[in-house]
Amino acid sequence: MKIYETSTAPSPRRVRIFLAEKGLLDKVTFEQLDIQAGENITPEFRLKNPIAKVPVLELDDGSYISESVAICRYFEALYPENPLMGVTPKEQAEIEMWQRRCEIYFFNIVGMGFQHTTGYFADRMQPNKEWGEQCVKGAAKFFRVLEAQLSQNEFIAGDSYSIADITALVTVDFARVIKVRIPEDMPNVLRWYEAVKQRPSAKV
Amino acid sequence: MKIYETSTAPSPRRVRIFLAEKGLLDKVTFEQLDIQAGENITPEFRLKNPIAKVPVLELDDGSYISESVAICRYFEALYPENPLMGVTPKEQAEIEMWQRRCEIYFFNIVGMGFQHTTGYFADRMQPNKEWGEQCVKGAAKFFRVLEAQLSQNEFIAGDSYSIADITALVTVDFARVIKVRIPEDMPNVLRWYEAVKQRPSAKV
Repeated sequence: MKIYETSTAPSPRRVRIFLAEKGLLDKVTFEQLDIQAGENITPEFRLKNPIAKVPVLELDDGSYISESVAICRYFEALYPENPLMGVTPKEQAEIEMWQRRCEIYFFNIVGMGFQHTTGYFADRMQPNKEWGEQCVKGAAKFFRVLEAQLSQNEFIAGDSYSIADITALVTVDFARVIKVRIPEDMPNVLRWYEAVKQRPSAKV
Repeated sequence: MKIYETSTAPSPRRVRIFLAEKGLLDKVTFEQLDIQAGENITPEFRLKNPIAKVPVLELDDGSYISESVAICRYFEALYPENPLMGVTPKEQAEIEMWQRRCEIYFFNIVGMGFQHTTGYFADRMQPNKEWGEQCVKGAAKFFRVLEAQLSQNEFIAGDSYSIADITALVTVDFARVIKVRIPEDMPNVLRWYEAVKQRPSAKV
């Protein structure tokens, strides 16, 4: 199997960390795309993913799976050992809930904050600086939700490391580009961050 | 089990259709919240969901699951009959991919278009009309992706009705509020829409 990605972009990093945590990095090869140069918005790449985003997983039968979490779901279903998306119905639901909270109200907001304040993709979208600045402020607010949850739990979705931790870690690291950092008065978020960034998977 | 919801809002409708398709509506009772009046942003409701959105599922053990897709995941795992999220790894991944495409690039964009152009929640957020108008235009573009997919497939994620169809149907219906409608020159999207809206689940 092969993954088309951009190693410096946050979404592909989610998949790499997921694979590293499950011990599956050797199941795939990686092909790099220069997304700033637009290698993902060519007609050829749109045949792989009409949404024109990375990462995209190419299966051995020649079909394609895009969307980071869908790629993770594929590997979780194929290799259920070291589960990162829960096993019981309640675990699955709680992890999905936290993964989605971290994605919708943090990862996506940081992403829009970045794109709209920096104009990084101004060749293919219309940046709205005011909206971008609102997103930067909104992203910082999510730390309060994380602090409350991490004051009661070792990891974001409970006692075990999960895909929710991956989404949050990748977001915290990427948020540096818009100068959003974990506030000093959030001891539990800081404790969690130190723990997850020490894991070998965080380096991939 | 109990679901806190607002029957006129799009997200709770996703869960109701999902439960109807699986024949599980009788497993839950529903309690209505007036979100326009702010019944979801009270300190009491934030104990159920710190993100302050509906729907929220209350389990019999007193714990809460929020985020529509996480609630659906819970019921899918608990009652695997009539699967709407796939069975094999590839089916699960393809349905998750299409569910996410329909959600991220269509449902969420219509939602922002609505909130930012109408100022419906202006008491709790800062509407940005220009951004809202960009979203309205962006939402309409997604029909091209759907038309291409539905020209090759009966349903959005392939041969079977799935949670991806639910997300898309709810979005098409909700998009009327921002005057975004299926274009006349998209015969396959129109054919799909007629079929999914005729299903009894679409009426719940």
